[in-house]
Amino acid sequence: MSQTSNSSDAVSGLDDLYPSRQQSEPTLLERRDPVIHSGGGDPPPSITPQQVEDYARNGFVVLHDVFTAAEVAALQEELERLRTAPHIRVLPEAFSEPDNDELRSLFRVHELSAVFGGLAGDPRLSNIARYILNDEVYIHQSRVNLKPACRGKGFYWHSDFETWHVEDGMPRMRALSMSIALTENTVYNGSLMLMPGSHRTYVACVGETPEENYKQSLKNQSIGVPDDGSLKELHDRFGIAVPTGPPGTVTIFDCNTMHGSASNISPLPRSNVFFVYNAISNRAGEPFCDREPRPEFIGARRRIVPIPH
Amino acid sequence: MSQTSNSSDAVSGLDDLYPSRQQSEPTLLERRDPVIHSGGGDPPPSITPQQVEDYARNGFVVLHDVFTAAEVAALQEELERLRTAPHIRVLPEAFSEPDNDELRSLFRVHELSAVFGGLAGDPRLSNIARYILNDEVYIHQSRVNLKPACRGKGFYWHSDFETWHVEDGMPRMRALSMSIALTENTVYNGSLMLMPGSHRTYVACVGETPEENYKQSLKNQSIGVPDDGSLKELHDRFGIAVPTGPPGTVTIFDCNTMHGSASNISPLPRSNVFFVYNAISNRAGEPFCDREPRPEFIGARRRIVPIPH
Repeated sequence: MSQTSNSSDAVSGLDDLYPSRQQSEPTLLERRDPVIHSGGGDPPPSITPQQVEDYARNGFVVLHDVFTAAEVAALQEELERLRTAPHIRVLPEAFSEPDNDELRSLFRVHELSAVFGGLAGDPRLSNIARYILNDEVYIHQSRVNLKPACRGKGFYWHSDFETWHVEDGMPRMRALSMSIALTENTVYNGSLMLMPGSHRTYVACVGETPEENYKQSLKNQSIGVPDDGSLKELHDRFGIAVPTGPPGTVTIFDCNTMHGSASNISPLPRSNVFFVYNAISNRAGEPFCDREPRPEFIGARRRIVPIPH
Repeated sequence: MSQTSNSSDAVSGLDDLYPSRQQSEPTLLERRDPVIHSGGGDPPPSITPQQVEDYARNGFVVLHDVFTAAEVAALQEELERLRTAPHIRVLPEAFSEPDNDELRSLFRVHELSAVFGGLAGDPRLSNIARYILNDEVYIHQSRVNLKPACRGKGFYWHSDFETWHVEDGMPRMRALSMSIALTENTVYNGSLMLMPGSHRTYVACVGETPEENYKQSLKNQSIGVPDDGSLKELHDRFGIAVPTGPPGTVTIFDCNTMHGSASNISPLPRSNVFFVYNAISNRAGEPFCDREPRPEFIGARRRIVPIPH
């Protein structure tokens, strides 16, 4: 524990290695954690050593053909069931599009759905998380995202870790996300855009965290996003990649990889299910801001259940 | 002149070959005009016979290397001059982004700027228009579009002709657009998306034209856009193309090609200059709706100046 005093220490009792929303000017900081936490050894069969290298370099990797067509179809059916079930829409875990009632995100889906719970624990995914993070893992957050056809809104650029750190109290960069496509991802339906290599740079953002920020930020994030100058700097350094692929494509990305998505005006909806695997040793503590932690279904802190082998 | 009577005849005195905004249900109609109006003969040197064929089939074609680097740089400088000149921003021809004061479009730019006026009359462009339309041509509309970095809004799907027909009184499909990129077009900065082959199908839209519709529609078009079902049908038939290229890339597209663009959250602004060439024989008459024509700077009707050879 640090003996220095700053506003974050006062809140969390832990060193704040990644201060953000504390200064009036943005800063680019070097990452202070490994990307691949494993000391070596063979990766699990669902990822090749070359793909692990790609992940280390770019902050993301795309895996094709992880699931059979039948498995993908079952996931799609489950999504449709959740999308249309009246008892789902009214849950606190359900969020709608800014302009209408269409379901946009459903959180805690690994617990609300046995199918997606099974997917989160599928060793083809969870063993990769354990390997990269070199620890037992649990789900810090899970959700399905539905970007409707024709009028789907985008998500502005952000590092997930910035929010998980500041608002959830996740101490270190030892978490990763897996996004499993449930519809086709093309360059024109609002697919995930990532900045390759951006995971090694942390953007300390400006602005103070409002109370219950998540209610706004899940619809239209304005706090914890990079300023235009930092974003331009990142783009100049790293560029932008737009991975595409059929339903079932798995995109694994580091917690600090800068990403976002544009609007979807195409008639192809874009949906995915999304799991955040966090190392047990990196579980969320007190937020690194002067606010209440976000709800349990957005950032797990009490129910920490290691994914069984 | 037709002796049948319908609401459009009453307004225009001309047969309405492409009725729209008149029925409560959308309809897909067959195009009733040629795409290539020329009876044959060699195209001008700035376009190859193969490119003319591509245009005929897809409703658009992309030309690279039309301009030298110095010419492109001069166009970019002129855009920057217009973007920042205080006397430009206050013109009725200037339109800003919905959410802020950034210049989004400047109309009648072929008359407001000698540089862009010269570009509209450049034989490398105008000779192509004359060839495809097989007539003397004039500029029905011209503008520069600036899609700002980070927060640039998209344009929803539309056929230009639908609006030019209904609101400007353009009788037939004998016009085309040329968009000259002034910044790089990538798949991730809100580039033009087109549906290849859609130019042969006319979507009769639903909804009535409000008064002074252009004031709203230039910011966020809601009338004269296809319904979701028609759009899905078009996508199933034609798919979506996203041409990319460096500054100076010329995209030529038919007046009825379905197109749109997503938002731009990337730090790369996207700008282009856009000319609508119309055949002299196809000049705008009375609108095919019960409204005043749009302003001269949006749809020329009084100052019809054939582009000199």
